[in-house]
Amino acid sequence: MPSNVSVDDVLAAVDADLDQSLERLFAFLRIPSISTDSAYRGDCRRAAEWLAEDAASIGFEASARATPGHPVVVGKQAGASSRSALFYGHYDVQPVDPLNLWTHDPFDPKLIEIEKGRKAIAARGACDDKGQVMTFIEACRAWKKAAGELPVGVTLLVEGEEESGSINLPAFLKDNRKELKTDVALVCDTGMWDGRTPAITTSLRGMLYEEVIIRAANRDLHSGIYGGAAQNPIHILSRICGSLHDAKGKVRVPHFYDGVKNLPKSLLADLAKLKLTEKQFLGPIGLKKSAGEKGRLLIEQVSTRPTCDVNGIWGGYTGEGTKTVIAGEARAKISFRLVGDQDPAAIQKNFRAFVKKQVPSDCSVEFIGYKGSRAVQLPYDSPDLLKTRAALTKEWGKKAVMVGSGGSIPIVGDFKRTLGLDSLLVGFGLDDDRVHSPNEKYDLSSFHKGIRSWVRILGALAE
Amino acid sequence: MPSNVSVDDVLAAVDADLDQSLERLFAFLRIPSISTDSAYRGDCRRAAEWLAEDAASIGFEASARATPGHPVVVGKQAGASSRSALFYGHYDVQPVDPLNLWTHDPFDPKLIEIEKGRKAIAARGACDDKGQVMTFIEACRAWKKAAGELPVGVTLLVEGEEESGSINLPAFLKDNRKELKTDVALVCDTGMWDGRTPAITTSLRGMLYEEVIIRAANRDLHSGIYGGAAQNPIHILSRICGSLHDAKGKVRVPHFYDGVKNLPKSLLADLAKLKLTEKQFLGPIGLKKSAGEKGRLLIEQVSTRPTCDVNGIWGGYTGEGTKTVIAGEARAKISFRLVGDQDPAAIQKNFRAFVKKQVPSDCSVEFIGYKGSRAVQLPYDSPDLLKTRAALTKEWGKKAVMVGSGGSIPIVGDFKRTLGLDSLLVGFGLDDDRVHSPNEKYDLSSFHKGIRSWVRILGALAE
Repeated sequence: MPSNVSVDDVLAAVDADLDQSLERLFAFLRIPSISTDSAYRGDCRRAAEWLAEDAASIGFEASARATPGHPVVVGKQAGASSRSALFYGHYDVQPVDPLNLWTHDPFDPKLIEIEKGRKAIAARGACDDKGQVMTFIEACRAWKKAAGELPVGVTLLVEGEEESGSINLPAFLKDNRKELKTDVALVCDTGMWDGRTPAITTSLRGMLYEEVIIRAANRDLHSGIYGGAAQNPIHILSRICGSLHDAKGKVRVPHFYDGVKNLPKSLLADLAKLKLTEKQFLGPIGLKKSAGEKGRLLIEQVSTRPTCDVNGIWGGYTGEGTKTVIAGEARAKISFRLVGDQDPAAIQKNFRAFVKKQVPSDCSVEFIGYKGSRAVQLPYDSPDLLKTRAALTKEWGKKAVMVGSGGSIPIVGDFKRTLGLDSLLVGFGLDDDRVHSPNEKYDLSSFHKGIRSWVRILGALAE
Repeated sequence: MPSNVSVDDVLAAVDADLDQSLERLFAFLRIPSISTDSAYRGDCRRAAEWLAEDAASIGFEASARATPGHPVVVGKQAGASSRSALFYGHYDVQPVDPLNLWTHDPFDPKLIEIEKGRKAIAARGACDDKGQVMTFIEACRAWKKAAGELPVGVTLLVEGEEESGSINLPAFLKDNRKELKTDVALVCDTGMWDGRTPAITTSLRGMLYEEVIIRAANRDLHSGIYGGAAQNPIHILSRICGSLHDAKGKVRVPHFYDGVKNLPKSLLADLAKLKLTEKQFLGPIGLKKSAGEKGRLLIEQVSTRPTCDVNGIWGGYTGEGTKTVIAGEARAKISFRLVGDQDPAAIQKNFRAFVKKQVPSDCSVEFIGYKGSRAVQLPYDSPDLLKTRAALTKEWGKKAVMVGSGGSIPIVGDFKRTLGLDSLLVGFGLDDDRVHSPNEKYDLSSFHKGIRSWVRILGALAE
């Protein structure tokens, strides 16, 4: 901790600079850095360069480093103490389709009032993850401004391929192992428990993502001529997708639950105390009853239990009006969220066999395997975890909760494997942020108090 | 039947006049009467006028009648008997693109040898439908030449909009109901069973076409946050589409088979004798085994049995790469081919109830109903059908088969509804005629024996 400066001084600097902080975030949000669509390749590069420049402006030795895909921004700066942290986030964003559902241009950020007294930043990436990344950068800026230096050494690592599977980051970590080695990783890509209760994510679900292509006839057919005899690949694919779950919501792929443990009773009791109800969780999205595994708490279903979802399906005629076609092929994108010791490679094998069994002998199936990652679990007694929890509790005036995240941040596993780092997952997203959907937003309080939270955490880690 | 003239005399006249018959057809084929392209509007008119003049030259009171679109050629001529027939065909042709795939000018007809001893007329419209129309006109010409009169009264009705949906013909039928009323309709726009086996199409499948929209959450969701709890509309829709057929290929919508009768045993035996194999029918499209109803002949499955096909399905992310979204809605287009007395309105009602039953209470379903039409079925004991069958059998030396068409020819329904006429669908096209494709042709034997077939049918109808 730099001498002669209190955390309160730094927090005052945050408050005084908030309008400028917002302007910088807006500039960042205006760059449409959609990583999954090659048309936006140049924009991804621009976003990386913008961020490297901004980091350099507050003392980081920073640059956008080339990879076989989109660049990785790396920045290094020493701190007042010998302790150091690696900060991870991503500058790429999700696609914006369907564009017609947006009430405003996704890349023209605006401060909007979503209810009386509640302001939010509206834009693609406002929360996921540009807004979250900037909470940390702005916290560093405030430390520099108020104290002249950071309390701990910081290495920034902000990638541009998180939304497309972080394909090149594991190799980048390996190639730059020494440079990236610190004492702990800080990851800002998660959410709070609710608008007033901060959270630290202590487990993350893993992921397996597969595309399935069913092929039948060698061309599209007229259903008047072939209907009643020709295999219809949409029927085959529908049967497969419809067979993924049993009537109790369990995934039917053989051996899928190998490596899944029940939670310790004490943790299960903590989770039960949060009293997450269907009305509270599903009501805002227009649903009433959980479709998940019977006999499990709702919070278990969405955070500590494995799942399977068909994320996309398409085949045949999808235009206006009618066309009596029998398609030659049909496709689906299917993902699995993994927990505990589930092995993505084994599940991929069992899933593919499960699908193949349902494909008639004169039809064929092709698989495109995108990504497999195991689940991650943080030790509950880590000193940095306890410091961070205390800092968050002080900022928000409410005890920070430790939760499991339903989502995957595969790179957290790589931090452990490649760099030997535990990750503290602290983020300020809210359930109604509509990340990955039209009209994404980030509460102004998430942004403002998020910056203040990082100011406190950086200070605490130095102690 | 005119006195003192045998059918053999008329057939001899056909044979003697074949070269001139071809020349007349070639003149007709040289007019590029493409109805879907307004650039050819004048050519459509020319084709109509050419045909009206040619019909007038053999005693028809004929003219090209104006419609809001292309003209309809109507010609009337009394016959030796009091019986009368309405002949339907069309003078318009399909577009010719891609022109570079033609080995010759589509509007410069030629007689070519396609294999040793097998000659064919090569041109756009050679088969569909100018060649077929001229088989009937030339048969009338031969009767006039040999006997001085037609054996039955004939009303010609040759339209110019079949390839663009016969938009104006239903109203034309209504407006000219009295003039067009005869005892039976003869339609020449279908094919033979094979190059040696004549066919009469005795049934046409009807159609019900529905779009199903399943809605779950009020927006797209992140599967990491909601996966395991939120209803996924793709799962719901997949289960519905996957439940449309049972393991034996039967449609599972309740009461779907109401009004479907088994074929008469003799007809079934006739169809069995055709020995349509999976290899022959499915081989060319890359398939091996029929997906249709178990225990039915392949030819039944595609012509006289009702079917259901999902013609299109879509929902969620269908772009490049991965997106871990749970969609807010998913859609499918589903069509049913109907036979016998199946009632499209009843099936629509039962189908919608069948779908609704599978939609969870907090999700919703919307239906878009496109169209419903009943099947057309000619009574198997119709005297005109039996006469026509005998005449074809005599000409070709092989028993004419009675087949069902898997597709629909909507105007046939209008003949029944508006004019009260059953239709005898007799045509001489072959599977390799490439109608609607480059290098359309019509076998010389189809043309020559087609004319002879109509000579015999006209004679038989008078009896």
